[in-house]
Amino acid sequence: MIVYGIGVGPGDKELITLKSLNILKKVDKIFVPISKEGKPSVAYEIVKDYIKDKEVETLLFPMIKYKEKLKYYREKAAEKILKENKDVAVLTLGDPTLYSTFSYIWKILAKKGVKVEIINGISSIFSAAKALNMPLVEGNEKLCILPHGKDIEKYINDFDTIIVMKTKNLKDVLKKINNKNIIVGLVKRATFEDEKIAIGNIDNINFDEFSDYLSIAIIKRIKDDDN
Amino acid sequence: MIVYGIGVGPGDKELITLKSLNILKKVDKIFVPISKEGKPSVAYEIVKDYIKDKEVETLLFPMIKYKEKLKYYREKAAEKILKENKDVAVLTLGDPTLYSTFSYIWKILAKKGVKVEIINGISSIFSAAKALNMPLVEGNEKLCILPHGKDIEKYINDFDTIIVMKTKNLKDVLKKINNKNIIVGLVKRATFEDEKIAIGNIDNINFDEFSDYLSIAIIKRIKDDDN
Repeated sequence: MIVYGIGVGPGDKELITLKSLNILKKVDKIFVPISKEGKPSVAYEIVKDYIKDKEVETLLFPMIKYKEKLKYYREKAAEKILKENKDVAVLTLGDPTLYSTFSYIWKILAKKGVKVEIINGISSIFSAAKALNMPLVEGNEKLCILPHGKDIEKYINDFDTIIVMKTKNLKDVLKKINNKNIIVGLVKRATFEDEKIAIGNIDNINFDEFSDYLSIAIIKRIKDDDN
Repeated sequence: MIVYGIGVGPGDKELITLKSLNILKKVDKIFVPISKEGKPSVAYEIVKDYIKDKEVETLLFPMIKYKEKLKYYREKAAEKILKENKDVAVLTLGDPTLYSTFSYIWKILAKKGVKVEIINGISSIFSAAKALNMPLVEGNEKLCILPHGKDIEKYINDFDTIIVMKTKNLKDVLKKINNKNIIVGLVKRATFEDEKIAIGNIDNINFDEFSDYLSIAIIKRIKDDDN
């Protein structure tokens, strides 16, 4: 039994790799993550045209904070997968190695001696940079990724680029540190048809529409040297 | 005229997206980066089977440090591209937004009013994590990318994961700070047929074979909590 952790990319159906497609064609069963019973799976929507003849089953990963409860759902998902006892694929948005729910399943399965194979996908950090029409980093620039913008005041003068995942409270976080030397780029649902971007400084940018879990912020220090 | 900056992924021919392939089929001419006259282009090798009927031209980006000289080669490359005056593609290893030589061309062309469209690719930071069979980050973990491992002593107790690009002097850098609380994963030529990995702590890992420009290090802080 091999469990393939498949990155389906950020949203655009074309941003899937040949490798992910080839594995999806090969396996008999495909597991798709959902955050609520009855709610469509974003990862499934991306690949559904490619896997019409495949058996599909959902894995429930509710968006909750309570650790024990999360553990319960992850264990349950791993059990569902193990029960198959054949090669299966588990879909994951973006890339399976970067803040993916699949990483927890990966750990549980690895502990049980099950072979897990990761198939990388395009991460939303790159499609967000593309949407904003700017490179993330070049040359010897330093980059960091801070979920919730945590500790951003410690790093904002040190890093050329800061990526913030989970942007819900970013407005408050940035207003508090009040650094005028940065440009903030916000991207919602990068590469989807309803992609939305905003770019500006903390006083003139509207954060309000960029708070859901498919939003991302790229913060750049303004430099004198433009070369 | 549209100039497509195309990410061809880390090395494995299958790790290219449908989008990159579709654009390569559409354009008339494809520019491929080389670091030395007569030396094969790594990016071209990845896609050559898909673009057999296409006109291909090289762009020379020597690996030198002298700023004015670099600027000269970048300007010359941009000129070559502009001369075409039709839709063309420029190949780039990994993703065009992360430490890509293409970002300089992008800037020059954008200043001249030329439309540049980025097509994202799989970055080697993800294929390195896959090769080491570990997630980069999960939950609310913090990650940073430090070229040459610069200032790593400042961040090593703060970040869960540190990625080092340009690993040539990493051994000396890590021996100097002598932090025993980290695991070092080294990956050379991730996803190529001759991919090589090593993992261990600074006293038992052999850095010597991981110093070329297609090597990458993923450094993880050891934590008590394994959940």
